[in-house]
Amino acid sequence: MLMNKRTISIEFGHCDPSGIVYNPHYFIWFDSSVHALLASGGVTLKALMSEFGIDGIPVVDYKCKFFAPARWGDELLFETGIVGLHRCAFDIQHRIFNGGVLAVDCAETRVCTAVDPQQGRVGAHPLPEKLVEIFSRP
Amino acid sequence: MLMNKRTISIEFGHCDPSGIVYNPHYFIWFDSSVHALLASGGVTLKALMSEFGIDGIPVVDYKCKFFAPARWGDELLFETGIVGLHRCAFDIQHRIFNGGVLAVDCAETRVCTAVDPQQGRVGAHPLPEKLVEIFSRP
Amino acid sequence: MLMNKRTISIEFGHCDPSGIVYNPHYFIWFDSSVHALLASGGVTLKALMSEFGIDGIPVVDYKCKFFAPARWGDELLFETGIVGLHRCAFDIQHRIFNGGVLAVDCAETRVCTAVDPQQGRVGAHPLPEKLVEIFSRP
Amino acid sequence: MLMNKRTISIEFGHCDPSGIVYNPHYFIWFDSSVHALLASGGVTLKALMSEFGIDGIPVVDYKCKFFAPARWGDELLFETGIVGLHRCAFDIQHRIFNGGVLAVDCAETRVCTAVDPQQGRVGAHPLPEKLVEIFSRP
Repeated sequence: MLMNKRTISIEFGHCDPSGIVYNPHYFIWFDSSVHALLASGGVTLKALMSEFGIDGIPVVDYKCKFFAPARWGDELLFETGIVGLHRCAFDIQHRIFNGGVLAVDCAETRVCTAVDPQQGRVGAHPLPEKLVEIFSRP
Repeated sequence: MLMNKRTISIEFGHCDPSGIVYNPHYFIWFDSSVHALLASGGVTLKALMSEFGIDGIPVVDYKCKFFAPARWGDELLFETGIVGLHRCAFDIQHRIFNGGVLAVDCAETRVCTAVDPQQGRVGAHPLPEKLVEIFSRP
Repeated sequence: MLMNKRTISIEFGHCDPSGIVYNPHYFIWFDSSVHALLASGGVTLKALMSEFGIDGIPVVDYKCKFFAPARWGDELLFETGIVGLHRCAFDIQHRIFNGGVLAVDCAETRVCTAVDPQQGRVGAHPLPEKLVEIFSRP
Repeated sequence: MLMNKRTISIEFGHCDPSGIVYNPHYFIWFDSSVHALLASGGVTLKALMSEFGIDGIPVVDYKCKFFAPARWGDELLFETGIVGLHRCAFDIQHRIFNGGVLAVDCAETRVCTAVDPQQGRVGAHPLPEKLVEIFSRP
């Protein structure tokens, strides 16, 4: 299934008084990595929203393990890939390598949402076929 | 003119590897202090948006001086007040005291924007009278 | 075991273009809630660091479920408590209620670290007895 | 004097409910642009700290004008250059272009600090000659 790699350089401002990455930054990078994954498949959330009436793809579940800290000046390699497809949701795995060593492993599930025309409320919505096709690419 | 005070406690996660507040946080607090100032006057940006068709009150100018750093555990006193009213804009002053000493002094100008019904574009919009009245209170 | 409650008001700047809280903010609040939990027990990480030579209490595991989004203007109630004590680690549960409804449930594990005097490296360190005593309070 | 260019892509998570960049992000980018400027001159703050005993290069002054907002999906061009050198401080100018149009103009002054060996306190410190030489390059 679709997978993408990118690197993030750890800046001064990413780190806390202990000199290591302040962990909420990882969740910003998980989010931007999902957007980068979409882009690697030739689509954007913006396009999904306007083309299919999708309201968003909010995260409903994170399972994240931190094995080693990252420090100012480190270069992190992010491997972000689709690992599961459901009717209205999809599973992502982020693996972050620091100097070749697995530093963070995060399983993330996002759900596709749209406004239900009958109820007028936002709820789960089947993944657009186009997105399923993109996510299924080897 | 309208003025409001509040305190912010410096958390671990606000600080950088030098152990002092990472300065972009001040701009987050300037923003939330403007929202707190509105609230102290009995109004919210949300209400301004829905009641007067305001699109937003974006910052167009900051002049900010840092006299002393703040550290993890410090309690900062913010004094945020209106110091100037213009047709479509208003001037704010933020003074931050740390242990009774002026640590940061920031002059901020925001403009009131709305969609121009003729041009269909967002542009400067006169301050709603209600807002002028609130900002003018002693 | 030790538990603490606090509220967070959702500000304009916490929200993304979908109008809901941008989820990395939750991890900032989990962190500050752990610091608030320590404070409720009469101790600070700073004091633990200077008194016991602790290097930090980094997160090693998050399991976080999001049941409902939060929006600008919402008041979130955080319940943060200790739910497990290990030799060098402790388990925390954060439950966030929005309008009385459980919106987020997060299990977090942190490890206590210190510099190993023999190896000169940071590694897991037994929880100081004082911390165990504080965390064990009903 | 030394100047560097780089681009920043505006992500979903950089934007607020108005759909434009939440302005504290600019100050994060100003900071990382200064670090990128140093790197373009072949030096890092980390190296300055260890080689010359510098404690940091905190910002003491920002004068920032916002002429146009940036939106999700925009590509911003940052031009960051040294525009003034003083005994213990230096002036930086950031100009941000969005689609070829000047969107933000920020003047920033940073001071070089170090621990005064006699007083044991952090204070202003003359710029290392190496840094002056790097900043003076055409």
